[in-house]
Order: sequence, then C-alpha cells, then structure tokens
Amino acid sequence: MNNLVVMKFGGSSVATPEKIKNVAARVTQKAKKNRVVVVVSAPGDMTDDLIEKAKCLADTPDLREMDLLLATGEIQSIALLTIAIKSKGFDAISLTGPQAGIYADNVHTKAKIKKIRPQKIISELKKDKIVIVAGFQGINPNDDIATLGRGGSDLTAVALTAALKATECEIYTDVKGVYTADPRVVHDAKRLDMLSYDEMLELAGVGSQVMMSRSIEVAKKYNVVIHVRSSFSDEKGTLIMKEVPKMENVVVSGVAFDKNESKLSITDVPDRPGIAAKIFGALAKKNINVDMIIQSAASDKRNDISFTVSKNDLKVAVSLLKNISKKLGGGTVIFDENVAKVSIVGIGMRSHPGVASKMFKILADNGINIQMISTSEIKISCIISSRDTTQAVRVLHGGFGLG
Amino acid sequence: MNNLVVMKFGGSSVATPEKIKNVAARVTQKAKKNRVVVVVSAPGDMTDDLIEKAKCLADTPDLREMDLLLATGEIQSIALLTIAIKSKGFDAISLTGPQAGIYADNVHTKAKIKKIRPQKIISELKKDKIVIVAGFQGINPNDDIATLGRGGSDLTAVALTAALKATECEIYTDVKGVYTADPRVVHDAKRLDMLSYDEMLELAGVGSQVMMSRSIEVAKKYNVVIHVRSSFSDEKGTLIMKEVPKMENVVVSGVAFDKNESKLSITDVPDRPGIAAKIFGALAKKNINVDMIIQSAASDKRNDISFTVSKNDLKVAVSLLKNISKKLGGGTVIFDENVAKVSIVGIGMRSHPGVASKMFKILADNGINIQMISTSEIKISCIISSRDTTQAVRVLHGGFGLG
Repeated sequence: MNNLVVMKFGGSSVATPEKIKNVAARVTQKAKKNRVVVVVSAPGDMTDDLIEKAKCLADTPDLREMDLLLATGEIQSIALLTIAIKSKGFDAISLTGPQAGIYADNVHTKAKIKKIRPQKIISELKKDKIVIVAGFQGINPNDDIATLGRGGSDLTAVALTAALKATECEIYTDVKGVYTADPRVVHDAKRLDMLSYDEMLELAGVGSQVMMSRSIEVAKKYNVVIHVRSSFSDEKGTLIMKEVPKMENVVVSGVAFDKNESKLSITDVPDRPGIAAKIFGALAKKNINVDMIIQSAASDKRNDISFTVSKNDLKVAVSLLKNISKKLGGGTVIFDENVAKVSIVGIGMRSHPGVASKMFKILADNGINIQMISTSEIKISCIISSRDTTQAVRVLHGGFGLG
Repeated sequence: MNNLVVMKFGGSSVATPEKIKNVAARVTQKAKKNRVVVVVSAPGDMTDDLIEKAKCLADTPDLREMDLLLATGEIQSIALLTIAIKSKGFDAISLTGPQAGIYADNVHTKAKIKKIRPQKIISELKKDKIVIVAGFQGINPNDDIATLGRGGSDLTAVALTAALKATECEIYTDVKGVYTADPRVVHDAKRLDMLSYDEMLELAGVGSQVMMSRSIEVAKKYNVVIHVRSSFSDEKGTLIMKEVPKMENVVVSGVAFDKNESKLSITDVPDRPGIAAKIFGALAKKNINVDMIIQSAASDKRNDISFTVSKNDLKVAVSLLKNISKKLGGGTVIFDENVAKVSIVGIGMRSHPGVASKMFKILADNGINIQMISTSEIKISCIISSRDTTQAVRVLHGGFGLG
C-alpha cells in the first residue's frame, strides 16, 4: 500500500498512561503525512506478572490457557493506545491479532505465522483510520489465540510490513539504533546508519539485544526495510536492509559480546565415527543449544571435545556429559562458567583479508588469551575469560577504527 | 443437558491465586457428580483499574475500545482458573464470550444478549471437560467484543443456564444467600430458603445488592432456578424460582433500604395537562431515572410535585427543574439529600390485607415520619429521613416477625 508505514512500540513505551500519550503523539505526528499501522506489545512487566500468577496455580500451566492469558496484555495496549489517539481527534481502530488476519500454527506459546490476510486492515486504512494491531498474537487452526514467543511483536510488525507492502517497518526502542558496540561498555560507540540483514543476524546471534533473529530473517526474506530508532527523539536511527555495495567498504560494522556462555570439555574420547553425534544428539534431546564446538586430535586415537552452551543449561549438560563419558569410555568432564564470547561482525570481511589475524593480534597485544575461535563468512568470535570482556570489546572497537 | 450445573463466581472470588485455588476446589468437587459450566468475572478491582487508566487518556474514552479493554479482565480469569483446574487433574477448557457463542447487540459497554449458540460448549462438555466461560462479554454483529454492563456476568450465567437447559444456576457470593434484611444492619436477619422471581425483582429494585434486575428478569422468562450461595461454605443458600403456593404463607419476605435516594419538589405548578410530561420528559432526556412520584393537589388550580432521584443525579436534576419551573410559571424548587427509602417485599401481601397500614403503624409507633409512599402489588416503600434508616429497618424486621 502506498505511503504506508508500520510503527512498532515495545512494552516499555506503553507502560504508563504518560508513556501511552507520548506514543500517541508520535503516531499522530506520523499520520499527518503517512498511512500508519501501529504494532504494540503488552504494557511494561505485565507479561512477566501474568506468568508469575500462572506459576502460582500450576507447575506447568496449560499452554493453550497461557496463550489466552498472555495475549490480554497486548489487547490492553491496543485499546488504551487507540483511546489516546482518538482523543487527539484522529480516527483509529484497534485490531487483535485474529481480527488483523494473522494466522498462526498450532504450537502454543511459540507459534509461527502461517499467513496474513490483511483485508480488514486495508479496509480500515482506506477509511483513513490509523490501525493499531496487537503484537505477539494470532489465531490458530482451532480458532484459539496463539502467541508468537519472544520477540513476537517485532515479528508481527515485520510480517505486516511485508503483507501490506509498506514502505518501512519502524522499530521504536529506548536506544537510538544499532551501535558499533554496546554504548554502556564502549563510550565512543557510534550509531550505524545502515546495516545488512546478514550483519544484523550475526549481531543478534552473538549477544546484541536489539532484535531477535527470526524477525530479521523474515525481513530478509521479504526485503522489508527495518528502521530501528528511538521512542524519545526524531533522529534517524539505523536502517537494516538489503546489502548495497558501499556497505562493503566497512570491514567491521560492530563488536558484540555475550556473557551468557559457559565452556565444557570432555577429554580422551575414543576417536571413532559417531561419537560426536552421540554427544550432541543427547544434548539436542534435552533442548540444549550448543554454540561453538572444537575437536582437537590428541595422541593415541583419542580426542578432546570442547563446546559452549548457555549458562542456564550448564548444570544439565554437565551431568549428561558425565554419563555419556562413562558409557563411551571417555575421560573427565571439565567446565568453566567464567568465559565470555566477543565477536566482530561485518560484510566487508569477505573482501578484506587478514581481519581474523588482526583481531587475534589486538587481543594478544592486550594480554587477552583466546580459548576458542569460531568464524563465519562475516563474523569472527572468540571465547575469552569473562573478566577480560570489557577490555576486549574496547580494544577491538578502537583497533578496528569504530570509535 | 442432563445433570448440568452452571456455577458463577464474582470478581472477589478470583482476586488472588489463593482464591482462584479455592474456586478450583469447589468446581472440581462439583464436577465429580455433575457436568459443570463455570462463569467468572474479572479479578478483584481490575475493571475499575482499567477504567481509571482509560480516563487518564481521554475524558470520554471510545466505547468500542473500552469494551475490548474491559473484556481482558474476564479473559484473564478464565485462563487462570482453567490452569488451576487442569493442574488438579481435571480436564477443562476456557472459552471467551465469542468462543462460547454469546451473540450481543451493537450497544458497546451495555450490550444485550441477542442469542446464544452453545454448540461449542456442548461439544466440550461431551468430551467430559469442565467448561469455563468469560462472563460479561459477547461478540457483536461487527465481530467486535461487546460487554454487557453492570451485573453482566450474572446475566451470562443465567442465559447459559437457559440455553443449555441446565438444572440450576449457582451464583456464588460472599454472603450465604438472600436475607430478610441486610445482616450488617439487622443482626437477627435470616437467610431465606426460597424466594419468587417477583420478590427478588422488587428487592433488587429497592436496594438489595445481591443481583441486578435484568438477570432475574431473564431467569423468570426462561424459568431458570437461581441458587444464591456462599463461596466459602457448602451450606445451601437461597433458591430464586417460580412462585409456588407455600410462598404465599409468608406475608413479608424481606425488608430493604436504599440510602442513595434524594427528594425534589417543585411547588405551585399550574394544574394543566402536559405539565408532568414536560418535567419528566426533560429528566429522561438527561438519562435521569425517577423513582417515586407524588402529585398533591394544592389550592387554586396549582400543584406541588415531588419525586426522588438517585443522589448522583441530584445536582443536574435541580438545575434542570429550576429552568423548567421558570418556563412553566411554577414556584420554588426544594430538595433534600437526607432521605432514604425503606421497603417491605412479599408475595403474601396480595392475599393478606392490612400490610400497608401495619407498616405505617410500626413506623409511627417508633416516631418515624413518612415523607412519601409508593406501593406495588408485592412491595411497599416509604421515604423517610435518612437518620431513621437503621431504626426503621430493625423495627419493620421485628414487627413483621422476620427475626
């Protein structure tokens, strides 16, 4: 649809009546020149509060009922925001996920969007209304509400942008965009003007909190321009978009870190086919995501295998590994919680050789020991001691000229 | 449906996880011997809190959005109660008003139920599930949520009892049933075993808070047996049902009072046709409900007209009356806020003469002055000074042998 913008506001932006008024002001400002669809999340901590209430009633609350419960948060947000917008003399209408034509699959609490039938939204836009859609929710094949899991409101916004062929999907946050590094750690971090989908995907995967991977994947698939910007200022933010040639000139776009890693090693594993499959198959069965994996060939046809998992999963992973090691005739299981991952990301790496060795040299020059390394085409990650995290991020940020 | 009971719990019964567990215990107890449909209200003060939030955003919030907002309260209740019931090993499912097949008209915030299509409820009951339905809400012809106004959850419960041909509609409250008088005022007030629809309607109309008139009207129309009982004990409560002969033996079933009345008089109104229509037409236009009306023929073809309105409406009514009096060439407008209405209700009155005179004598013997009187076939109401209210209720309760 011509001249249409999708604006998405998170829960902190609608936590109080004052904040809702601020959002209403931004939306109506935009509506003077554009058709507008707004996507909102549940107010403030409401989702967490509801989860807590449900946990008081059952150890494992029924998932269909959880979805119905949690979806009320976004519904309250759309009703309140619409009331605020209408009181400013603009015509507006709220639509729940089902009313907006968002069809989800049957997986309660982490449903996927199957299709969008945007006719109702379009007909309301054609009546010159601002349309306010509940994020995070859709209707499933049983005619029940289903929620889309973490980052679900971003996903709603991106998917609607694609379905409505809107110009841009504006994601309003409490930061001004995507930065070369976390500004709380690196004080001269800079806001990036633009970033490719792949870079943003890599940053999301290595600890950047701005957006979840799956929304970016959908944006990439449908070529949706995402504009990450501040709820509190009119400044332009960061455009996340299709790769354009000039992006290649920047070798490293950002430095990220993730302190939620822990490292496990199992020593002296027999070197025969199928061993790795056994270990990582067992972890997958328990829904434990493994990040980096290193297998080092040791002497006498025995290997050491090291890998990282999130800190939450460490305890379960260790006890699992001890069992497996016993069965396989392996050695001891070693683990270390005091590790972190630092990563550099940039599509320029593809055409600029020597980026990895430069990264290793910068860390070495600063006395920071590298425990594990993994690379992709546009990302290099190193596991280091967690006490070195801040220093590592700062020296890499400076060393690659991002400051 | 055979052996089916509808249980309705109000907002105070589901205000906290502890209270929800208590409701779950009562419901599952009942479900051992009956098929059960449960209707619940929004938790505690949630509806008031949401109204307050909306009022922060707009002086007159959009009514469609208010309905969507307010309906989230009942949806949270059904989800949480269903989670609690399922965690006790019983199969259950929650249904929103729209899912339950409750079709309402287009009047947002005080919609009427147009029809009920209970197929979904019936099919879930046949799968041996406890069905938990959100009170107070339905879907309107625009496919929007509409709420049913004050007492809406009772209305949902009564209407479902009729539509499903259930045995009984149990209304759980924080009192043990309907009393001969308010137990906080009359300490020897007794719980009534049974009461006719007409008596309950009159009691609802004169200040008894147990149930709203319109739910009782629907119950009367469809001959639904209502059982008003305590959330906190297994004792039988009060049955509200079709009149049966033995009810006639009781002359007076209850004494009620209403302190929310105020009295207005307009003096020296010309005695010509159409004057009363002008006065009460003007009040009706402002949505002011008039209760009792007395017109006294004074001298010289001029009348005094007195009537009562609710205290909330007094200010508007007085300024309206002053205008009208000026236009009609009437006298002064007098008002009194310090009045109350005491009423006695009972279908036995019809066959027992002398009830009214007995009431007046009891009040007179106790030095209580009667300012206005109105009667129906089964009710007598008197306006008295509000400072006499408690004494009047007590002496009438004793005088008619209700203690």
